Amino acid sequence: MTERLTGVTRSGDGVADLAGRAAALDAADPLADFRDHFIGSDDSTITAYLDGNSLGRPLRATQHRISRFVDEIWGRRLIRAWDEGWMDDPVRIGDEIGRVVLGAGPGQTVVGDSTSVMLYKWIRAALASQPGRDEIIIDVGNFPTDRFVVEGIAAELGMRLRWLEADNRSGITIDQVSEVIGSRTALIVLSDVAYRSGYLADVAALTALAHDHGALVLWDVCHSAGVVPRQLDDWGVDLAVGCTYKYLNGGPGSPAFGYMRADHHKRLRQPIQGWMGAAQPFAMAAHYTPSDGIRRFLSGTPSIIGMLAMQDMLALIDQAGLEAIRIKSVALTEFAIEVSDKLLGPLGVRLGSPRDPALRGSHITLEHPGFRVATARLWELGIIPDFRPPDGLRIGLSPLSTSFGEVYHGLVGIREALWQPAS
Amino acid sequence: MTERLTGVTRSGDGVADLAGRAAALDAADPLADFRDHFIGSDDSTITAYLDGNSLGRPLRATQHRISRFVDEIWGRRLIRAWDEGWMDDPVRIGDEIGRVVLGAGPGQTVVGDSTSVMLYKWIRAALASQPGRDEIIIDVGNFPTDRFVVEGIAAELGMRLRWLEADNRSGITIDQVSEVIGSRTALIVLSDVAYRSGYLADVAALTALAHDHGALVLWDVCHSAGVVPRQLDDWGVDLAVGCTYKYLNGGPGSPAFGYMRADHHKRLRQPIQGWMGAAQPFAMAAHYTPSDGIRRFLSGTPSIIGMLAMQDMLALIDQAGLEAIRIKSVALTEFAIEVSDKLLGPLGVRLGSPRDPALRGSHITLEHPGFRVATARLWELGIIPDFRPPDGLRIGLSPLSTSFGEVYHGLVGIREALWQPAS
Repeated sequence: MTERLTGVTRSGDGVADLAGRAAALDAADPLADFRDHFIGSDDSTITAYLDGNSLGRPLRATQHRISRFVDEIWGRRLIRAWDEGWMDDPVRIGDEIGRVVLGAGPGQTVVGDSTSVMLYKWIRAALASQPGRDEIIIDVGNFPTDRFVVEGIAAELGMRLRWLEADNRSGITIDQVSEVIGSRTALIVLSDVAYRSGYLADVAALTALAHDHGALVLWDVCHSAGVVPRQLDDWGVDLAVGCTYKYLNGGPGSPAFGYMRADHHKRLRQPIQGWMGAAQPFAMAAHYTPSDGIRRFLSGTPSIIGMLAMQDMLALIDQAGLEAIRIKSVALTEFAIEVSDKLLGPLGVRLGSPRDPALRGSHITLEHPGFRVATARLWELGIIPDFRPPDGLRIGLSPLSTSFGEVYHGLVGIREALWQPAS
Repeated sequence: MTERLTGVTRSGDGVADLAGRAAALDAADPLADFRDHFIGSDDSTITAYLDGNSLGRPLRATQHRISRFVDEIWGRRLIRAWDEGWMDDPVRIGDEIGRVVLGAGPGQTVVGDSTSVMLYKWIRAALASQPGRDEIIIDVGNFPTDRFVVEGIAAELGMRLRWLEADNRSGITIDQVSEVIGSRTALIVLSDVAYRSGYLADVAALTALAHDHGALVLWDVCHSAGVVPRQLDDWGVDLAVGCTYKYLNGGPGSPAFGYMRADHHKRLRQPIQGWMGAAQPFAMAAHYTPSDGIRRFLSGTPSIIGMLAMQDMLALIDQAGLEAIRIKSVALTEFAIEVSDKLLGPLGVRLGSPRDPALRGSHITLEHPGFRVATARLWELGIIPDFRPPDGLRIGLSPLSTSFGEVYHGLVGIREALWQPAS
């Protein structure tokens, strides 16, 4: 115990500096006032919410929107509301996601299903459009559901998986993909921001490489959507799937979104052909005829209530500007790394993320064998990061709802949690 | 116009009787007070909501539950809430649906996805478990999404569809199924209550018939769940899928539920193997290992907000008792038929549903070529049935939120709408 405390005392001066730096950064932050838009941002029991990359905070506006929705729309318009707007929501809100966060023109993004189901649909549709090609390239560091869905489909179709292994602290490179891609490659499935390390892949270059070999590419943009500007149209991306409950603050389990480049719409077949993707859902036709455009990739009745909250966050992102959000995001992760180096480095904590901000999304992962035990204690203290086995603590920084002070106090709490004896 | 008015005058006395009958039925209704639990039930602009079979009304309790959820749970517990209950919701609420409405023991019902996606998963899982069998039996009068999903899967797998044709006013019989079932039959896909006619199928007998031939049976219980007592366990049903936004009042596009008999869990494979069906979702394992039990049939992150409202209605159904609800349901459809015969019969309206209440769910369909035009006018008047092409007006009667007076006033309004010249 003495040794540990000595280590801490040594970094004591640095601590005071960092508190001042946090205060100065907050004072100079042009987006600081946006924090007031979020429920819980003034809650003294939540010292630091460091998991906006897993579940974004609700907006105050969302509380009002949902209440009004239940009473006035669902409760009074009843089924008439399907004609008065609900039927258009999946494509209308999809277009907003495309415009505000993806760099995608209208008619290519749709909201629906869960991320896992949307991945499944996109992957099956892509594979069926690539006859004669029997390999899928995927990264062992991709998010589990991406890997699991791909594994299941590959087993059913008898396709070969080409697994890429990235350093746990970074992500997949052009060289790695070049080694395995070829005329047998049907599809590449990658995340643009790695869920663990936060590594930001070169989407443009990897997409071009895939196309050079006749392969399609599906990007999981769950951890970039809303914090890192994307240019899916310009990059010629074929397919993308993302989350709305992370940086788009849609609430736990809110629907996914899927992007499909316009020229693929007619070529790719919807694998789960439900009535909402049919040309005229309420015609109750004898046989399935797909709707025009992206709408054909809807399956079941869309979750209207699940699409409410994300609309408030999209409006807020639009107001703040995604470029400004990215600037603050980089400043937040830079500051988190600086504080971690000074406060946690002496305790043996290592950075599991790229140090170059150009190669990083809006979260970092810190590594220490004590983090599994520490996380439960931190949660009780109102310091809320995310534990990722075997030894990772993810610090996810949602720029509009996170202050530099929160980062500072959160990491101070992490230091205290690591000090405490396990008993 | 004179002729029409004459026709009406002739039934004039009957009209006064019917108003009195409606009032008497409401006065004697032991469930009458339950109507006060629903938002909009006191709204004078809604004369008659006759589409509870399409979208149930919100409960007042739901307004409070959602508001509390956003502020206190999502907003304050944040990701901690996954450990504090959210992870269990799909199976916990599934068990409640099983107990309260399906006659299903625990661990066999799960909430998630949309009805279309759940149908897809159950159908693919069932077909993969029946090697050597290449036929699916399905009814042309089954709900469109059931037919569309089956069509898509059959085309992909090269399976043969055996289409049954029921009378538009009734449903599928044992004899019809007997004619086409055999050693090639992998699966039968039917609705227990037909979405158009309301015909109530003999689930026990048809399930036994399927099993006699080694076939599995998937029942779409969307139009029975919450209004007609079901005994899925006793009947040995293999698979069932249902809606929560109809008589379970879950809100527009709320998640589906799926029932799978316990002994199938290990034999059937999850076709969309997402992380939430994995043994330990947060272990971020290298490969997919399915969870035990029904949980393995989850795919993506469950829609927590989408599962809030249905819990209030399940509690209310449990309080009222499903047997009592069925008694009122039968009384409501009996009364609707009586009023329709007297008020609308003279205008040429025919009943498109069984007259025997034992063969009927909780809705009826009336048929008249003028209904397509009349529906828009009715909606403006706050009389809200559902139009089903080519000439059907569905009158869906959700027993806890619908009064006999509402049925009477609604049908009077329909008569007026049919009278009015189309100009």
